[in-house]
This record gives sequence, C-alpha cells and structure tokens, in this order.
Amino acid sequence: MKKTSDLRPFFEPTGVALVGVSRSPGFGYGIPLTLQRQGWQGAIHLVNLAGGTLHGMPVYERVADVPDPVDLAIVLVPARFVSSVLPEIAARGIRHVIIETAGFAEIGEAGRAMQAEAAEVAAGLGLRIIGPNCVGVVNTANHFTSVEIMDEALTPGPVSIIAQSGVFGNILLDGLWEKEVFIAKAVTLGNRLDVNECEILDYLHRDEDTRVIMMYLEGAADGRLLLETLARVTRDKPVIILKGGRTPAGRAATASHTASLSGEDQLYEAVFRQTGAIRAPSLDQLVRLARIFTTQPLPGGNRLGIITGSGSLGVLATDSATAGGLTLPALSSSTESAVREAAPDWMNVRNPLDTGPSGQFPAALSAVASDEGIDMVLGITVLPYAVFSSFEPLGLTAPMWFGDIRAIHAASPSKPMAICAIGNERFIGLIQETAGSEVPVFDSPEGVAAALASLAGYAAWKRSLD
Amino acid sequence: MKKTSDLRPFFEPTGVALVGVSRSPGFGYGIPLTLQRQGWQGAIHLVNLAGGTLHGMPVYERVADVPDPVDLAIVLVPARFVSSVLPEIAARGIRHVIIETAGFAEIGEAGRAMQAEAAEVAAGLGLRIIGPNCVGVVNTANHFTSVEIMDEALTPGPVSIIAQSGVFGNILLDGLWEKEVFIAKAVTLGNRLDVNECEILDYLHRDEDTRVIMMYLEGAADGRLLLETLARVTRDKPVIILKGGRTPAGRAATASHTASLSGEDQLYEAVFRQTGAIRAPSLDQLVRLARIFTTQPLPGGNRLGIITGSGSLGVLATDSATAGGLTLPALSSSTESAVREAAPDWMNVRNPLDTGPSGQFPAALSAVASDEGIDMVLGITVLPYAVFSSFEPLGLTAPMWFGDIRAIHAASPSKPMAICAIGNERFIGLIQETAGSEVPVFDSPEGVAAALASLAGYAAWKRSLD
Repeated sequence: MKKTSDLRPFFEPTGVALVGVSRSPGFGYGIPLTLQRQGWQGAIHLVNLAGGTLHGMPVYERVADVPDPVDLAIVLVPARFVSSVLPEIAARGIRHVIIETAGFAEIGEAGRAMQAEAAEVAAGLGLRIIGPNCVGVVNTANHFTSVEIMDEALTPGPVSIIAQSGVFGNILLDGLWEKEVFIAKAVTLGNRLDVNECEILDYLHRDEDTRVIMMYLEGAADGRLLLETLARVTRDKPVIILKGGRTPAGRAATASHTASLSGEDQLYEAVFRQTGAIRAPSLDQLVRLARIFTTQPLPGGNRLGIITGSGSLGVLATDSATAGGLTLPALSSSTESAVREAAPDWMNVRNPLDTGPSGQFPAALSAVASDEGIDMVLGITVLPYAVFSSFEPLGLTAPMWFGDIRAIHAASPSKPMAICAIGNERFIGLIQETAGSEVPVFDSPEGVAAALASLAGYAAWKRSLD
Repeated sequence: MKKTSDLRPFFEPTGVALVGVSRSPGFGYGIPLTLQRQGWQGAIHLVNLAGGTLHGMPVYERVADVPDPVDLAIVLVPARFVSSVLPEIAARGIRHVIIETAGFAEIGEAGRAMQAEAAEVAAGLGLRIIGPNCVGVVNTANHFTSVEIMDEALTPGPVSIIAQSGVFGNILLDGLWEKEVFIAKAVTLGNRLDVNECEILDYLHRDEDTRVIMMYLEGAADGRLLLETLARVTRDKPVIILKGGRTPAGRAATASHTASLSGEDQLYEAVFRQTGAIRAPSLDQLVRLARIFTTQPLPGGNRLGIITGSGSLGVLATDSATAGGLTLPALSSSTESAVREAAPDWMNVRNPLDTGPSGQFPAALSAVASDEGIDMVLGITVLPYAVFSSFEPLGLTAPMWFGDIRAIHAASPSKPMAICAIGNERFIGLIQETAGSEVPVFDSPEGVAAALASLAGYAAWKRSLD
C-alpha cells in the first residue's frame, strides 16, 4: 500500500486510539485526562489487552474493537510488541501512527534490529509513523496533544517546535509560556523511523498558525534534503535551529540518544548559512530568538541604537551587537540636539547613549527610535533598586523613569525594539509591565544584542533573495 | 604629604563626612538612611553649604565644622567644586576620599581638565581617592556602604566585587542575592583618579572575608601591573573577570564611559591565560562562575560525569563541557554494573548517562559521584511537569525522583557537583530546595557545563604552580 503524504491526521485526528495505555500512573496514563480537560473535540479510545475501564472509559482488548471515528493511533506498548501491533492498526483502517515507546535504535544492536523490523512492517502496510522514542505532537489550535502537558503550554501562539527528543520537547513546553513564547504546534520526532524533520518543516511552512519555527536538531535524516527544505521554508518563515553534537563527544552522545549521525559541525554551519536558517548558540538564546522573531518586525538595515542607564551594560551589548554584524552609527544631528537640550553637562550624547541617572532615558529612547539613521533600538533599563524604592512613595513609576516603552515602539512600528533589564526580579517585573507583550524584555545584555543581530541577519538574507 | 598605602578607612571608617549631601530625594540623599537602618556603628556627618537639618541630623556648612570621629569623606558636590573641596577635607585631617560625582574625564576635554586638576590637588595633599564617577564601597561585615542599597544585598558572603562603573556595581548587588551570590566587599572605581583595580585586588587578597573575586574591567590602569597583581592573587583566590570592550565599537564606548583605554582584546586574553584569571564570556556566566567557585571544591582533574533525564540536554552539556576542556570518560565497570542492575532494557549506561523516565536518576547520580574515574558531577534534572504533578498527590517528591542531592554530594565532598534544572519556575524551585545551598542549580545546560570547565581549568592552573 502506498504511503500518504498527508500529515494532517497527526495534528487534526477525528479519533485517536491509545494502544497500550497504562492502567496505573506512569507514562501515557494521563493523556486521556489531558485531552478531556483541554476539551479536545475528537474521540478517545483506550486499548489494552487487560480490558476493563480506565478514567471511567472502556478499555478495548484489541485495536479491532475500537469504534469509529479513529484515524490516529498512539502506540505505548513495549518495544518488542510494536511490530506485531502495527498490522492490527492498519487492519482497523488507521494510516497514521505515533510510536512513543523507547528502546529501539538508540539502545544499540538489538534495538536497531527491532526498529528495522518495525520500519519494514510499517512500509509494507503504508503506515506513516512519527517516532519511535518520542512524545508525538501538540496542536494548540484544537487542543490535541499526544502527551500529558500543562494547560498553560496549550495557550495558542505563533511558534512551532520541532524536536527530536520527547523529553526535551516536553520540558520546553513546560517553561516557554513563562517566557511569553506561545506555541502553534510542537512535534517530537524521536528516532525518525519514517517522518523526518523535512516533512514537518514543509507541513509547518504551509500551516497558517505557524509564523516562526524553532528546531532542536541532533543530526539530519538527509543532509541534502534538509538544505533544500530549509532554503524553501526560510523564504517565508524564520527557522531557528539549536544543533546538538557540535563536538566529537557531543556527537557520540547523540548516537545513544536518538540514534542520530550528527555529522561534522562545519557542514551544518554551511547549510545554515546557505539557507538563511538562524543558528541559536545555546538553549537560552533559542528562547530569546523565538521571542524576538515573533514580536518584532524585520529591520530595514543593521544600524543599532542603544540607550542605556548603565555604561558598562552598554559596552557589553555593543561588543555583542557588533560581533554579530550590527553597527552603531553616530546619531543624527537632530537626534543629538533633541537629546542634548535637556541633558546635564556630564551626559555624553553618543551611540551607545548612556543616560546615567539624568532622567533623560524616555526622551533619548524616543529620539533614537525616530532617528532615520537607526534601524533597530535596544533600551537597557537599570536603576539601583534603593533609588527606585525611595522615589516610589512620591508617585514616580517605571514609565516615568524609562518612558512609555510600548507607545514609543508603537510610534516607530517598523523598527524592532528590545529591552534589557538588569536588577532584581521585582524591578524586571516592573519593566516587563511597562514594555507589555509588544516589546520583549530580556535579562542578558549580550543575549539581547545577539538576538537583534540575528534578526538583522535574517532580514538581510531575505533582502538578498529579491 | 606622602600618600598612605593603607586602604582600610575606605572599608572600615570610624566616621564618614557626606560632603554635598542632597537635601531632597536624589543621588546620595538616602545614604545616611541606609547606614542608620543597617546599623553601621560609625559616625555619620552631613555637610552642605545650606546648613539646616536632614533626616533629623544637623547639616554642617563646612567640612571644618565636622566633629570627631571622621576619617573618610564621600564627595557628592558638582564636578566643578570638587578640586576646591579637597583641601578642606585634607585640612580636617581626612586622608581617604570617595568622589562619587560624575562629569570628569568620561565627558571629554573639559572633564579631563577638571580631573587632572583634582588629581594634582589630591596628590599634593596626600589624599587617597576612589573615583570620581563611582558609588564607592560596600562592606557587608560592618554594614558600611557609600551607596544606597537594598538590605538583602548586605547579607554577608564570600564574594568580593570590583567594578569600574557605579551603576553596574549597584545593579549587580541588587540582583546577586536572588541568585544566592552573597558579598563580602564591593568597590566601584569609576575613573580611577588614584586607587586602581590592582591596589584593590591586593587589598582583597589579604581580606579574610573574601574567598572569590569578581571583576568587571573595561581597561587596565596599568597592564603590566595588572598582570603581576593577578598572578599573585590567583595563587590563593580565584579572580573571575568580565571584560568590556572586546570589539572596536565596544572599546570606543568604554572611552566615553569610564575614560578607559580598553586595549586589544588579545592582550587581555593573554594576560588572563598567563595569570590563571578566569574569564567570563558574559554577565550571566560571571554570576554562574561566582556561584560555582564559592560553593564547590576544586576538582582533582577534568573528568566529568553527566547524569541526565533528557538526552538532548545531555548532548548540549557535553558539547559545552568538552569545548571547555573537560572529558567524559567511560564509567568504571563497577559503576556500570551498579546502575545496570535496576535499569530497564532501553537505558544506555554510558557517559553522559541518560536515565530517561527510568526512575534510576538517584542511583545513577550516587554511583557516578562515587566513581573513582570521575572528578566532577553534573546532574541534569528534568521531568515533564504534568507527570510530576500527577505523582505529587501520591506522595512522590522531588528527592524521590532525583535523589537527596545534598546528601549524595556530601558523600563525595571533594568532587564538585552542579545541577541543571530545566522546566517551569515551580519545578526549578523544587530542585533548588532539594539541592540546598550546597549544590548550585542553574537553568542553562551550556552555562553550567562551561562553569564546571572553568573550575577544572583553574584547578589545573593551581596544580601547575606546585
């Protein structure tokens, strides 16, 4: 039977069979509860040889017993039973299967043999498979998820995630919503017996809910295909990639993890450069990039203006920005005179513009944001907390110190703006309130500057295609 | 008059004169309140030409009017008055002066002239000067501070800070205590008219409360002297340095900030390598290094064991660790068999050791920590939060999933241990509770691995001196 190229039932099944569902707390046990609580509208069918009931629902002894509608199976049985359950699934008319079970190619020779057998069986039956050794998919639009997940992680947003490892995808989802990164779809691919990252990239390319794609990659299933696919997708949507296995020891570790051949790092670097994919150097930076790419427009050029309350942080951000390819041009004479008007003698009107404790941060941020020689703006907000708290009883608020950041951004909407806030958590919280969800706030001067550099790099790559 | 080399009155004055104290909320206004609230035992004298009272204390019109005891002056008057107030301070018998006023060499030609004049006056009078353009010193042992600061930042600890910029030093102090980095002394040097980082390094070298020194440096006052001083100090205490001005644009920014000539980055890199100083590549990493150097012993070698609940995070940490010079050797056969005993088939007993959802994390952490072929241990704790919260009602706690981390560390006290926790804030909080203050918890796999590599690098440098 020929395989279908339609991946939609993985994300929008009408009914799902949980094959080998756990009857006591453990892996997979909570999936039906999550789907019910989330109000997913499809049918949930539980299958386990032991029969009986679970969570008040009947447990069918065999897949053949599952009633309509059903067009997706989630396989949770032990690895040695997987190959024998696939024919039952196909016989029931199901063409899409997520195999969550671990213990295949990632554990060595015996597992590789089982995986090869399962792959052969699946191909013969024309099944499409995600996994094994994964937790499948999440779709926040219809609240379908093949994994137990926090309700907050199902808040719909513009970012879609491709991860190889199930646990990794899962914990990313646990934490991203706290960092204001919200998800459209997430897919964990595991050992990629069938569906690989390129097919998913193409699917997300067409997916209307997805604006930005985040990917954790250990090794490409097919390097040439990855290059071609990325080149196609990044024309329309940024693809941000965190690559594991940069070093020989890291590469050795990927083999025992998702059975990946992660290859020489320079090759990947070349692929990313050629295709306009955005490389994240760390997990932290992956998250910052997702946040900045989803909230900010692409800049018209690489000229950065920095307004800072701390000279040192301005220096650190300048180092990181220029290392990433940005320039910090002189401010225009009209900007300079606008800022100098109310500035004290000791204030240098330069770029980076260190306002110190002058009270001129709002005016400076506004003037630099509207400077025609500046393409993107970084505001570094700091204030010794003791000073802040002594002024608070007098009615001085964060927007008075730092300006109505949201409104200043809105006045120059085509220019990306980001804020770096350093201090204690309460201070950072006040700045986040002032910036709103429109202007991202980060707590690393180097990280925010590098993220703006990545945004400008992607914009330049897009322009180079015209 | 000859200058004294004794810097003690900067940190342990018996009485302090605030010269030019602000009579309305603003810079310097809150210093007397902070000193009083903190219970500093010395005498506080306020000086301002306008006289009267402030915070219920008399304000003397001239420095000459200040009664005993007084051995330190904090100068807050505008820049143009600084040179004329220094002779009054010297005439009152004070030899140590912190000039907090900005508007000197950092603003250009006019400021440079004023600074040169002040330097000449100070030298002629034999005064020791910290500043100008700084906020002076903090000493948590006696609760003396020349800057308004949060009470929490005055919790005594083993780290001392040298910063050039006042604001930077201040906001570091605002945030460090939340990251469990506690301070012995902090000094901001500003434009270094007199006292420079080398003298302070020597002072902190001798200071019994200081175990680790953190430094933010834009440019050395004297490169040769810095090299000699660092080589001396790092034999006994680690010196962690964040260097601003790596790039030409960053260097240009330092000139208008603390009037530093920050010099070529390769020169600093060479100095740091030759002297065993530890370079922090970012502000985040500076803080992680401070935390790991203050809580962990120096390892006997560079062999790292990683135990992880997520293969991907294990790969990212492995990349970072080996890039930093660590190795991940095979586990000993006794460790391997101890772990394999209770491990499921699908679990790979390797290094990094991915326990997945096996429940074997505690046993693995304990076995690897006691492996004689392993010098330092990194535990990467993850658990999908939905799984964790479904087990919580059954009485399963974080220590059951991840072991009594503190006790496992205590059983191999000579081996550094660190934890990476990824997930939401509540999960990370639970891990922090389990690890206690003895084992540092970080939320960056790359950052924690690099910090362990720095620790091993410093240990190797110390061994090379024997």
